[in-house]
Amino acid sequence: MSGADPEGPVAGFNAYRRRMNERILAEPNQVVRRFFALDTQTYRSGALDVKTKELLGLVASLVLRCDDCIGYHVAQCREAGVSREEMFEAFSVGLVVGGSIVIPHMRRAVDFLDRLDGTVPPPPAVPEPPEAHGHG
Amino acid sequence: MSGADPEGPVAGFNAYRRRMNERILAEPNQVVRRFFALDTQTYRSGALDVKTKELLGLVASLVLRCDDCIGYHVAQCREAGVSREEMFEAFSVGLVVGGSIVIPHMRRAVDFLDRLDGTVPPPPAVPEPPEAHGHG
Amino acid sequence: MSGADPEGPVAGFNAYRRRMNERILAEPNQVVRRFFALDTQTYRSGALDVKTKELLGLVASLVLRCDDCIGYHVAQCREAGVSREEMFEAFSVGLVVGGSIVIPHMRRAVDFLDRLDGTVPPPPAVPEPPEAHGHG
Amino acid sequence: MSGADPEGPVAGFNAYRRRMNERILAEPNQVVRRFFALDTQTYRSGALDVKTKELLGLVASLVLRCDDCIGYHVAQCREAGVSREEMFEAFSVGLVVGGSIVIPHMRRAVDFLDRLDGTVPPPPAVPEPPEAHGHG
Amino acid sequence: MSGADPEGPVAGFNAYRRRMNERILAEPNQVVRRFFALDTQTYRSGALDVKTKELLGLVASLVLRCDDCIGYHVAQCREAGVSREEMFEAFSVGLVVGGSIVIPHMRRAVDFLDRLDGTVPPPPAVPEPPEAHGHG
Amino acid sequence: MSGADPEGPVAGFNAYRRRMNERILAEPNQVVRRFFALDTQTYRSGALDVKTKELLGLVASLVLRCDDCIGYHVAQCREAGVSREEMFEAFSVGLVVGGSIVIPHMRRAVDFLDRLDGTVPPPPAVPEPPEAHGHG
Repeated sequence: MSGADPEGPVAGFNAYRRRMNERILAEPNQVVRRFFALDTQTYRSGALDVKTKELLGLVASLVLRCDDCIGYHVAQCREAGVSREEMFEAFSVGLVVGGSIVIPHMRRAVDFLDRLDGTVPPPPAVPEPPEAHGHG
Repeated sequence: MSGADPEGPVAGFNAYRRRMNERILAEPNQVVRRFFALDTQTYRSGALDVKTKELLGLVASLVLRCDDCIGYHVAQCREAGVSREEMFEAFSVGLVVGGSIVIPHMRRAVDFLDRLDGTVPPPPAVPEPPEAHGHG
Repeated sequence: MSGADPEGPVAGFNAYRRRMNERILAEPNQVVRRFFALDTQTYRSGALDVKTKELLGLVASLVLRCDDCIGYHVAQCREAGVSREEMFEAFSVGLVVGGSIVIPHMRRAVDFLDRLDGTVPPPPAVPEPPEAHGHG
Repeated sequence: MSGADPEGPVAGFNAYRRRMNERILAEPNQVVRRFFALDTQTYRSGALDVKTKELLGLVASLVLRCDDCIGYHVAQCREAGVSREEMFEAFSVGLVVGGSIVIPHMRRAVDFLDRLDGTVPPPPAVPEPPEAHGHG
Repeated sequence: MSGADPEGPVAGFNAYRRRMNERILAEPNQVVRRFFALDTQTYRSGALDVKTKELLGLVASLVLRCDDCIGYHVAQCREAGVSREEMFEAFSVGLVVGGSIVIPHMRRAVDFLDRLDGTVPPPPAVPEPPEAHGHG
Repeated sequence: MSGADPEGPVAGFNAYRRRMNERILAEPNQVVRRFFALDTQTYRSGALDVKTKELLGLVASLVLRCDDCIGYHVAQCREAGVSREEMFEAFSVGLVVGGSIVIPHMRRAVDFLDRLDGTVPPPPAVPEPPEAHGHG
């Protein structure tokens, strides 16, 4: 998307996560380390494939409204071949189950997805109708 | 599973839900009615198939710890052809994302699933080791 | 509603709450006692009237999915003159903000309200269409 | 509050919400679109007036601790004629129902309200007493 | 407390948990099994002693409002030597952090604790003052 | 850690909290003021010492995923003499009870703790292995 940023548009997000995960895993706490290992194991292919599991992780993150988790699983879903249409159907499940408080997180999820896709649109040229103001 | 209960082992659960849904939908509140219609529409086949959507609904219900929702989606998943092994992989995602507070709901989910499957085991004949006591 | 139950249809619910509140307030813990006093003070008439405050308590309880709190505020709302139509509009806000996981709690809230109103309908005579099965 | 910002003090907040809502509604997902329409419909005047419904939305957002939703409903409440005193009574219900974890969100809500009102005070000239440090 | 019940007053609660835990651990799902093992490991003595860790588990369960988890940690706390006064201070932290929606769970926690202690009082002989009715 | 910042590395965080708390307490709302006073009282030494109570506040904040509350209690814990090893054991309880959605908050908690300790490490010189990417 940008020649200036060799790691891509969400590099800062990833770098922070990576750096702090290292700090955490450097600590001599076995329960924490095992939890991190278990977390990784959870999304490996099994009876359900990686794509389905990542979609499950995405919707769980949406309804629990954890932006970092949502961003992480959006990226993983995309890597596992989830299409934009499928992504929005997963969003719709999270939205209906979790309610309108999910909306702000969905906005950031779509923003994140747009950045991953390199399809961030230019800022709107004209003011929006008041109807579009709403939604928490 | 049982000739004595023509509707199956979870009939009471379904009957209450059905009766109260009718009470709710009989009320002249359009927002509520539309929400119920939208909820039904959410799980219809689209870019994602019904099985995947029901699994998404199940994991969302698990991490939000809603027993009735879990029971409902466990039944729907089974009807959509989700195997026991797949069901437990979905449970495992809910457990790792949502933490040990999911465990009591998972116990009831497995109990519900066993009743659906007609595989409720007889009560244990011998006391369990203390190790098995735990888990919130 | 029933001559046999002088305290009304939700007496058991109230009796347990009353008995355990007494147990709790008998304990020499000042923080707990002050919290209970503050909780009572919160719903007293001020810039907002009691009816509005009880509706606020009801919707907060709905989206946090606390059945006992919902039942309590439904009863308080009714006492403060909230009509059935207003009650359902409050439910609709809770439902849209909190999502479909609110539905099972709304079912129990309507059941509770019906008991308060003495309008519990007889069980349905005919099976419902499959459409009405849904909703978590 | 500031001649330099023609759209007012919270324009950035609104612009992002507007832009992302447009992105979301441009997507061909009917469930998501219907949810957004239903969300708008929920707060329309009915048995309860707009002011009461916005207060309900505000308290629901507070106890679910969604900053964007809180900011949105604070603005809507003010537009519906909710006074500062009424706003704080709504905050107090959210605080007592939701507990001290609501406090950080209440701080941001008051900050947002002050910006809307154009009453942001100058930074304090003297250090505060240690007592005021607390509150999560 | 009672010669008739050799396992004590909360035996039914423990038996169900034990039986379902066995069902779950009999399933060939390694993530679930590892999570259960990790859960047990978490409360073992380390830099913090068992008593402190069980109190942490209790307060976490209170603010997340999981009755089964609360009952489990109340029993574990008592076994680790937590006094009734300490237990109520832990409750008070959970109450203030989590808000009035914690109250119904605290009622059940105190009821559970009373049963463990064998100090369930006889039902009240006289009606309570209206003041004691409240609290969610 | 830095001679340039006389108040320490988390001064901005504290200043905002202090300023907004003052705004809130200046408001003539007695319920809000009493809640703030009660919040302060909750963590005073009693049957449980300050250190234990602050650890309880920390874990409650972790599982409820409130970054400001976590930061506040991390600072209070450190002041009460909680060692880094004890802090991580408290984190581990929060992580196992609350699940992987706690991880992003734990990352920020460790970052905050590192800043308090003045032990922020230099950015990593070499890329991390892919294994460390994960975890929500």
